[in-house]
Amino acid sequence: MTSKILPPYYAVIFTSIRTDNNQGYAQTAEHMAALAADQPGYIGFESTQEGDRGISISYWKDLDSIKNWKNRADHLTAQKLGREKWYKSYTTRIAKVEREYSYQI
Amino acid sequence: MTSKILPPYYAVIFTSIRTDNNQGYAQTAEHMAALAADQPGYIGFESTQEGDRGISISYWKDLDSIKNWKNRADHLTAQKLGREKWYKSYTTRIAKVEREYSYQI
Repeated sequence: MTSKILPPYYAVIFTSIRTDNNQGYAQTAEHMAALAADQPGYIGFESTQEGDRGISISYWKDLDSIKNWKNRADHLTAQKLGREKWYKSYTTRIAKVEREYSYQI
Repeated sequence: MTSKILPPYYAVIFTSIRTDNNQGYAQTAEHMAALAADQPGYIGFESTQEGDRGISISYWKDLDSIKNWKNRADHLTAQKLGREKWYKSYTTRIAKVEREYSYQI
């Protein structure tokens, strides 16, 4: 994602290690990505999965937008399922993007 | 990576799209990861590659550490090779990690 929003803005860095249980994961992940994109303050999302390790980053205008998304009822349900079924471990980091620069061929 | 360093600290978020040219990439990436780990202020590194899309995040104690690593001669050479051969596009973001929380089974 090359954002059209200039810093400062926020990144939520979610790094995870998955279990072998994929039941319902893809459907929920897709649904959550679509819901997040409709939230106020949403800027963008990118995610890569390599084996059992994943890095997902969502970008937001401010901390309030992140807090609102975190506490949405259907997102809370998905987070609970994540802990019960899909993730061995994860770390969530809230980070303020201060600078960015891009390169393109 | 679950860091033992508490926030605030810094994350360098590097998101990229690769070309089809892999010549020398793996060797250089491995060498750079080892060099970075020896730099003052280095906290950790994690990276996932899915198809041509990659997300790499390095963690640092402060902005000076990031600047020193960015401007190291051998790292500058690797960055130049990256633009010439390995990356169609990339974005680098410098972000201050303000909060983190982890879950583990």
